[in-house]
Amino acid sequence: MRIGAIEAGGTKFVCGIGNELGEIEDRTSFPTEAPERTLAQVIDYFKDKSFGAIGVGSFGPIDINPNSPTYGFVTTTPKPGWSGFDFLGALKRHFDVPYGWDTDVNAAAVGEATWGAAKGLDSCLYYTIGTGVGVGVYAEGKLVHGLMHPEGGHVLTRRHPEDDFAGVCPYHGDCLEGMAAGPALEARWKVKGHELPVDHQAWEIEAFYIAQALSSAILMLSPQKIILGGGVMQQPQLFPLIRAGVQKNLNGYVNAAEIVKNIDSYIVEPGLGTQAGLSGAVALGIRAFNQA
Amino acid sequence: MRIGAIEAGGTKFVCGIGNELGEIEDRTSFPTEAPERTLAQVIDYFKDKSFGAIGVGSFGPIDINPNSPTYGFVTTTPKPGWSGFDFLGALKRHFDVPYGWDTDVNAAAVGEATWGAAKGLDSCLYYTIGTGVGVGVYAEGKLVHGLMHPEGGHVLTRRHPEDDFAGVCPYHGDCLEGMAAGPALEARWKVKGHELPVDHQAWEIEAFYIAQALSSAILMLSPQKIILGGGVMQQPQLFPLIRAGVQKNLNGYVNAAEIVKNIDSYIVEPGLGTQAGLSGAVALGIRAFNQA
Repeated sequence: MRIGAIEAGGTKFVCGIGNELGEIEDRTSFPTEAPERTLAQVIDYFKDKSFGAIGVGSFGPIDINPNSPTYGFVTTTPKPGWSGFDFLGALKRHFDVPYGWDTDVNAAAVGEATWGAAKGLDSCLYYTIGTGVGVGVYAEGKLVHGLMHPEGGHVLTRRHPEDDFAGVCPYHGDCLEGMAAGPALEARWKVKGHELPVDHQAWEIEAFYIAQALSSAILMLSPQKIILGGGVMQQPQLFPLIRAGVQKNLNGYVNAAEIVKNIDSYIVEPGLGTQAGLSGAVALGIRAFNQA
Repeated sequence: MRIGAIEAGGTKFVCGIGNELGEIEDRTSFPTEAPERTLAQVIDYFKDKSFGAIGVGSFGPIDINPNSPTYGFVTTTPKPGWSGFDFLGALKRHFDVPYGWDTDVNAAAVGEATWGAAKGLDSCLYYTIGTGVGVGVYAEGKLVHGLMHPEGGHVLTRRHPEDDFAGVCPYHGDCLEGMAAGPALEARWKVKGHELPVDHQAWEIEAFYIAQALSSAILMLSPQKIILGGGVMQQPQLFPLIRAGVQKNLNGYVNAAEIVKNIDSYIVEPGLGTQAGLSGAVALGIRAFNQA
């Protein structure tokens, strides 16, 4: 079986063909431009290929409610032209196959649960911490939706006692994304994150916020694995700081060996590396194929 | 069909017989004492009754992993005699029926989703705010488990700017339960919550913490309904304060009519009133019966 996969990011689109082992057999990428121009490139890529379904993991917010008249649309985004764009409709006009459609982070979560760090588990959280912060939620073998999809990058966290940075989220100021995404690091320290030394206080403060969000997420959802990806998480010194912060915050209350004893294999890097998003889109496509 | 239902609380046990409409046809209650004595009363109640399954919503923490050797046990609790008690095993020795087994708050959540305030919805959160704070999580038509069950009463919240109370949680000090459960109200204001006037600052501070926890829960899970029960929530003046706090915190970011326009019917009292727990145990029993 071949599955078409689209990782639709805010700055870059990746299209590919994958199989039921999660292997990517072919891929291409191009910058995200106006939707018509971008979709033309997507369609051009897939038009002479063969596949049984397409999975799309998209930047958001998006409408993922199958009963909504705007199902498949990108909803409200500052990205020129994309607000209200019928993304899935544009694809359906060209390719008559079952579609998997979810957020980029939900796609990555199900990809990791299918072939990656959470393989064989019923639940995981996938965080991307980069230009923004996004969270994919997989629980009881399903991707979680409700009113909309999760937007866990914007949870409120306590302020680090030595941090007087106001935060950069236009909605919430000092929410997790406002304090810990790449632009927050740069605004606070006046250099890009990757230019900061590994022993800089920035990383302890960064880990403080991430650990807090993870601690509350563990209490709410009890995930079997937490996977941290994205540009900021390319700084490996963050992992031990975050793990120690989670243990300190929970203070033995969640008395599971994964947290108390084996946290190094509980809060981890993506098993699929930078391919989590595209493989996740393949996983969405497979699920759509099997349900069709 | 008749279903046996047990609402196993830390201070009181309620046993009953319900039907597939969620109606309670018979019930009894007694104080929670040592486990052997309490279970003897449970068994005495059910022994001459007829039922196709039993649902148990229990105080916790409990082991809800069917693959665990201690599945069905109460795990670690300060309650004398209950730590490590094989609750489900004690029942199974007497009644050979399918068992539903979950936390009291997960039971209440599925009860509300079956017959109550979240009837017909795929997702809801059920908070009880009383002697402690507990959260039941129902998402994509399933009760959520993972490493363990959710323990959302202990999430970390920001401090109210006019509040210097240290918090009473033995694990986390000023987590949600430490700041907002009944004992926290009493320790902070030196009187029981229900003795405080409805216009007392206590309620604005109380709502501040609850609204924060709800806001982050909405961002993580996007539930279709949030139900607030428990002794503290018998103060109706809390509801408008909490709803306004959630809207202020989210600041339009979760752009769903349920939050932006219709929050009065989004954050609500239990539809099943004080019967949510027992009816929820019936719902657990029905699910177990249907899966057996």
